[in-house]
Amino acid sequence: MSAAPSAGPAPVRVAVIGAGLMGREVASAFGRWFALLDCPVRPELAAVCDLNPAALDWFRQVPTVRHFETDYRALLRLPDIDVAYVALPHDLHEAAYLEVIRAGKDLFAEKPFGIDLAAAKRVRDEAARLGRFVRVSSEFPFLPAAHRMFKLVKSGELGRIIEIRAAFHHSSDLDPKKAINWKRQVAHCGAAGVMNDLGMHVAHLPLRLGWKPRTVHASLQKIYRTRPDGRGGTAECDTWDNASLHTTVEIAGEEVPMTLEMKRMAPGETNTWIFEVLGTDRGVRHSTKEPKTLWTFNRGAEQTWTKVDLGFDTPFKTITGAIFEPGFPDVLMQMWAAFLAERSGVLGGRFGCATPDEAVAHHEVWAAALESQRSRSVVTL
Amino acid sequence: MSAAPSAGPAPVRVAVIGAGLMGREVASAFGRWFALLDCPVRPELAAVCDLNPAALDWFRQVPTVRHFETDYRALLRLPDIDVAYVALPHDLHEAAYLEVIRAGKDLFAEKPFGIDLAAAKRVRDEAARLGRFVRVSSEFPFLPAAHRMFKLVKSGELGRIIEIRAAFHHSSDLDPKKAINWKRQVAHCGAAGVMNDLGMHVAHLPLRLGWKPRTVHASLQKIYRTRPDGRGGTAECDTWDNASLHTTVEIAGEEVPMTLEMKRMAPGETNTWIFEVLGTDRGVRHSTKEPKTLWTFNRGAEQTWTKVDLGFDTPFKTITGAIFEPGFPDVLMQMWAAFLAERSGVLGGRFGCATPDEAVAHHEVWAAALESQRSRSVVTL
Amino acid sequence: MSAAPSAGPAPVRVAVIGAGLMGREVASAFGRWFALLDCPVRPELAAVCDLNPAALDWFRQVPTVRHFETDYRALLRLPDIDVAYVALPHDLHEAAYLEVIRAGKDLFAEKPFGIDLAAAKRVRDEAARLGRFVRVSSEFPFLPAAHRMFKLVKSGELGRIIEIRAAFHHSSDLDPKKAINWKRQVAHCGAAGVMNDLGMHVAHLPLRLGWKPRTVHASLQKIYRTRPDGRGGTAECDTWDNASLHTTVEIAGEEVPMTLEMKRMAPGETNTWIFEVLGTDRGVRHSTKEPKTLWTFNRGAEQTWTKVDLGFDTPFKTITGAIFEPGFPDVLMQMWAAFLAERSGVLGGRFGCATPDEAVAHHEVWAAALESQRSRSVVTL
Amino acid sequence: MSAAPSAGPAPVRVAVIGAGLMGREVASAFGRWFALLDCPVRPELAAVCDLNPAALDWFRQVPTVRHFETDYRALLRLPDIDVAYVALPHDLHEAAYLEVIRAGKDLFAEKPFGIDLAAAKRVRDEAARLGRFVRVSSEFPFLPAAHRMFKLVKSGELGRIIEIRAAFHHSSDLDPKKAINWKRQVAHCGAAGVMNDLGMHVAHLPLRLGWKPRTVHASLQKIYRTRPDGRGGTAECDTWDNASLHTTVEIAGEEVPMTLEMKRMAPGETNTWIFEVLGTDRGVRHSTKEPKTLWTFNRGAEQTWTKVDLGFDTPFKTITGAIFEPGFPDVLMQMWAAFLAERSGVLGGRFGCATPDEAVAHHEVWAAALESQRSRSVVTL
Repeated sequence: MSAAPSAGPAPVRVAVIGAGLMGREVASAFGRWFALLDCPVRPELAAVCDLNPAALDWFRQVPTVRHFETDYRALLRLPDIDVAYVALPHDLHEAAYLEVIRAGKDLFAEKPFGIDLAAAKRVRDEAARLGRFVRVSSEFPFLPAAHRMFKLVKSGELGRIIEIRAAFHHSSDLDPKKAINWKRQVAHCGAAGVMNDLGMHVAHLPLRLGWKPRTVHASLQKIYRTRPDGRGGTAECDTWDNASLHTTVEIAGEEVPMTLEMKRMAPGETNTWIFEVLGTDRGVRHSTKEPKTLWTFNRGAEQTWTKVDLGFDTPFKTITGAIFEPGFPDVLMQMWAAFLAERSGVLGGRFGCATPDEAVAHHEVWAAALESQRSRSVVTL
Repeated sequence: MSAAPSAGPAPVRVAVIGAGLMGREVASAFGRWFALLDCPVRPELAAVCDLNPAALDWFRQVPTVRHFETDYRALLRLPDIDVAYVALPHDLHEAAYLEVIRAGKDLFAEKPFGIDLAAAKRVRDEAARLGRFVRVSSEFPFLPAAHRMFKLVKSGELGRIIEIRAAFHHSSDLDPKKAINWKRQVAHCGAAGVMNDLGMHVAHLPLRLGWKPRTVHASLQKIYRTRPDGRGGTAECDTWDNASLHTTVEIAGEEVPMTLEMKRMAPGETNTWIFEVLGTDRGVRHSTKEPKTLWTFNRGAEQTWTKVDLGFDTPFKTITGAIFEPGFPDVLMQMWAAFLAERSGVLGGRFGCATPDEAVAHHEVWAAALESQRSRSVVTL
Repeated sequence: MSAAPSAGPAPVRVAVIGAGLMGREVASAFGRWFALLDCPVRPELAAVCDLNPAALDWFRQVPTVRHFETDYRALLRLPDIDVAYVALPHDLHEAAYLEVIRAGKDLFAEKPFGIDLAAAKRVRDEAARLGRFVRVSSEFPFLPAAHRMFKLVKSGELGRIIEIRAAFHHSSDLDPKKAINWKRQVAHCGAAGVMNDLGMHVAHLPLRLGWKPRTVHASLQKIYRTRPDGRGGTAECDTWDNASLHTTVEIAGEEVPMTLEMKRMAPGETNTWIFEVLGTDRGVRHSTKEPKTLWTFNRGAEQTWTKVDLGFDTPFKTITGAIFEPGFPDVLMQMWAAFLAERSGVLGGRFGCATPDEAVAHHEVWAAALESQRSRSVVTL
Repeated sequence: MSAAPSAGPAPVRVAVIGAGLMGREVASAFGRWFALLDCPVRPELAAVCDLNPAALDWFRQVPTVRHFETDYRALLRLPDIDVAYVALPHDLHEAAYLEVIRAGKDLFAEKPFGIDLAAAKRVRDEAARLGRFVRVSSEFPFLPAAHRMFKLVKSGELGRIIEIRAAFHHSSDLDPKKAINWKRQVAHCGAAGVMNDLGMHVAHLPLRLGWKPRTVHASLQKIYRTRPDGRGGTAECDTWDNASLHTTVEIAGEEVPMTLEMKRMAPGETNTWIFEVLGTDRGVRHSTKEPKTLWTFNRGAEQTWTKVDLGFDTPFKTITGAIFEPGFPDVLMQMWAAFLAERSGVLGGRFGCATPDEAVAHHEVWAAALESQRSRSVVTL
């Protein structure tokens, strides 16, 4: 027997705008898409665009890429592109997102969804007006443990919710010798600083659960004010490094405290995502420090915390055995499967990517946080 | 050879007012006082007082107790008492404390130091006027790990302080069938509720380090509104069950976030005391979950967290081998040694018990927290 | 009211032979004996003996001690002594134990029960012949978690036992500059070395559960061969430092592997006692690293490990609140309560101290281990 | 610009024999091979073979697969195949491996390397005679933490090695309702049972470090004797479920205990790989429970254990950011990169896959373990 080309429905043709780290991950996920066993939609990385031609070269080894552009407007004029994934500096998001949807393409947007609240609203409204399918990138809800926590919280079994904590912690910025980059500069990162960077990671699951803050008190910190500029000199860092938002949400008529932490300077932490919901009857807790482990609280005759080892129990089934550990690339692939499945109307009961309304809601929280910090007050949304 | 009575300076004669749990611990600590190897002061439990005569009976087996009273005024008239330790419901603190010091006795006060800020100030000022030695009970700074953290933080090696967290967590109140008692009623516990109960545990070390909050934003919660009244009916719980205070302190000219958590409803937690200070260069972390273990952060070529097993490395040396685990009774004995040593002017460089000024400062923070909760605002002290 | 001397039955009069660390702990436990709420027997430290008169001085501050001796034979002739607690170097155990029981006293023996198997048998047999009450010191079964594990294992709920591990780990000997002492010399410590020192800690609970090894394969190690002699020179260390015994026990007709570890050189460990029993249906696990925490395994729809915070839930109730952490002195006091209660026939269903038969069984295991190491074989008992 | 096909050296053409779980992982790894940034060799999945034609269908969606066979002899006659990866039941390994190498192909063999020692030797010797490049699959040494431990151990900084532990733990077999399969039957799995399954995971790193056991004492267990046969009846399980091998290795003239654990019934464990080496000066410890975390011991003024968060610090660099978590598929891809790079002579200083000599050495250890279990003895190799 010899090979026949794989049949099936035509693939969704995806373009990557911004040929950096995350664009390459997209190529990698698509390259092994057949590893997904029950995803009814198939993507193809058809085009890539970057201002810097050298950045395009890496993509030349990806067999499906047929367009290499340095101007994304040229790319958006191509007829054989269905979806654009945009990973640019934050200050370029709004313009690019608007051009993508006005060019008739669907959009998978990197976070933040525009540099600030006003930008986010403009993109959302334009997408709604044009009827484009738009979602925002956020990987962690696609972890097996996140999926389990989401279901348990929604089941109502937790009783009265006592408190909620969502956190995302990094630490590489603690190295004072790390050179500055655009993420440490308000002009490019946005006034929300670390909230623009990491905020979607902490707020996505709460918002999906309907927990939009009613009040926000922010503790925002600038820790190092200068950094090496990478050229022998020193540059100013003017963005917020760490943000802790002490909020309240209303759940079943009760005001519940919810803490959202986004930190670039959490000593020793590397990509640590934490989600915890405590109720009077049950609770859930997870951290990517122990990525296999799901913790649940039970108030029985004794109060106990129970751990269970989860394996590769992803929303979309894959070839990888259930016992194996998922890594970041696996979770990213799950997120893309959710994006594409929802776009095609076949998501089923699975968790979907962040919506424009959710992205706008995030920005409302960050805007309130900035106002809280400025005025030293508790801001009501 | 036959025994000779032990010589040495005359003991400090202590009276216990309120013959409950903590009064018995005092008797127990004094009963094995010789276990301390380098404490130059020796106490003797000479008297005990309780409204309920039956509560006195347990103390009849303590050889040194020679006075059994049901009226503490009678006890305070006894000439052979030097110090009174008072463990009464919060609403009786002020009156009793004032009577103790006006009777010419020194005072070891249970927390809170008066039911509210005004009471605390009145007691402090009267003690100052009369020149009485007054301290407030707070056991956890006498843990070996607390001692080590205190020293490391004071050394300045942490670099710029990024954040501080002090917490004390209980969970027995999560049982909805637990009957009400005076600690769950504002009239007896005070408007500050759980902060009156547990607040000294979290604020003592920060205040000693000079970290008095500049701003306070409180999240106070009442979780269960009613409880069994213990007589087949139901009673109202009107105190705060959980309190999280998001404060800022000024350290070396920088505003640093400090979180103080006092929770009666922390799922699964039993007497868990947590203290954590993170700096740009080093950090410290400890929890009584792992009572032997001290964690320290180091920012070197890599960022690391290091743990070391501490044993019985207490401020006052004891007969107990350094390798053994200290328990709560051991820490309480250390606290009493510090009280008595400081009273006699021989504390040396050791950590001393909470002072009236510190106790007043605590109450200032709780008062600000109540105002923050009432007005939904960030309160400046 | 003025004090009346405490009434009740006459106390058990205890003598300490060997006025070191553990003898002082006995004095300390007795000094606060009234902290026990439901122990129907009361001890009194009446006499102390040490070859070194200076070692006796510390005991002069213990009010009840009325005899101070340097020759234990003189002490054993005193009529007002009921029980002797003997804490001498191992090579003196047999002679002292025999003299104690022949003098008509009951015996609380320090481990090991004689320097080797032959000695243990001679003491056991003589005690049986004379009808003396004799038990051996072993503190860890009196931990709240140990008590709970013992009960759960005995309940049969674990299903088929898969494996058992008991371990005791120290690390201070890893310091090559620590001077030699008698415990590092075969002449005084015994040929079994670390097994004589620490073995009772690991084997007591298994033996009480009926798990006497059928086969033994030992891995014994001498890590440092010399140490400073404390006088500027170097001395030979000829005892075993670390011992891992790979044994099998028969449980319900099945051969089950049981590992017994006794290590003086376990990097970073300080007095860490570990006990773990795994079954097909349930399991238990505890370590003194987390002294409050009991772990249990459950095989349900998922396989889970559950933790619960235990507090001061000791076999004998004490004044100390259930929420507080027990330390080593508290556990030692529980052990003494069990010794005295069993001696008086009022132990009830509580866990009793190690018996002479159990002590002999321990030595049979260590003897087999020595033979296994010598012959590089699996030894059948 | 439009796409040009990727240039570079011709790919290595790989055939998968046995179209199961692991064959699909190979396809997935090759599908995103471009994610590797510094691997100078490129594979192509050219052919797949399975007795069951339906199993081939999944591979039809892999663009590069051009041969679909049900007889591996036919596949081996194809000229455009360079390497065969064989993943068949253990009893078919020897024949298939021999046919692969006699057909002039290089071999990436699944573990075990033949069903027993004799088979392993025959394959090794034939490969040597024919000059074929042959390696054996073993993923865990390619974890970032494994890499770091290997380097630290080789550095000599650990001082005298005290002990070594390598373990691999599963638990799905604890479910008594799990139906039998060929891995639970001696005829197909081999007499070594779980050692044939999981043994390479625990022994690979020790053998590479030169730690071949001198003596072996095995504790082998059959826990459940029967299982559902998947057709409503019951079938016998006759393989060893759990194996603990207590071995000694000689390191620097000292005999050092090394424990190798392979367990299908470790309560609650899912694919947990553990490696620990303790020395008098330093030590290393890692478990896939905390896949990011590397623990190291240091004996300084105090004895400490230090943890550091590792990210995607793989031997071959990839597009994935260093901060992200690697999963099993990522580690498998690293292993393939090492196989292909070593085959092409460009491995450099990186860790290579298990060699035939190492595979034979593994089998020597399992053979000794079987003899030890049979004779209840310590077997010398």
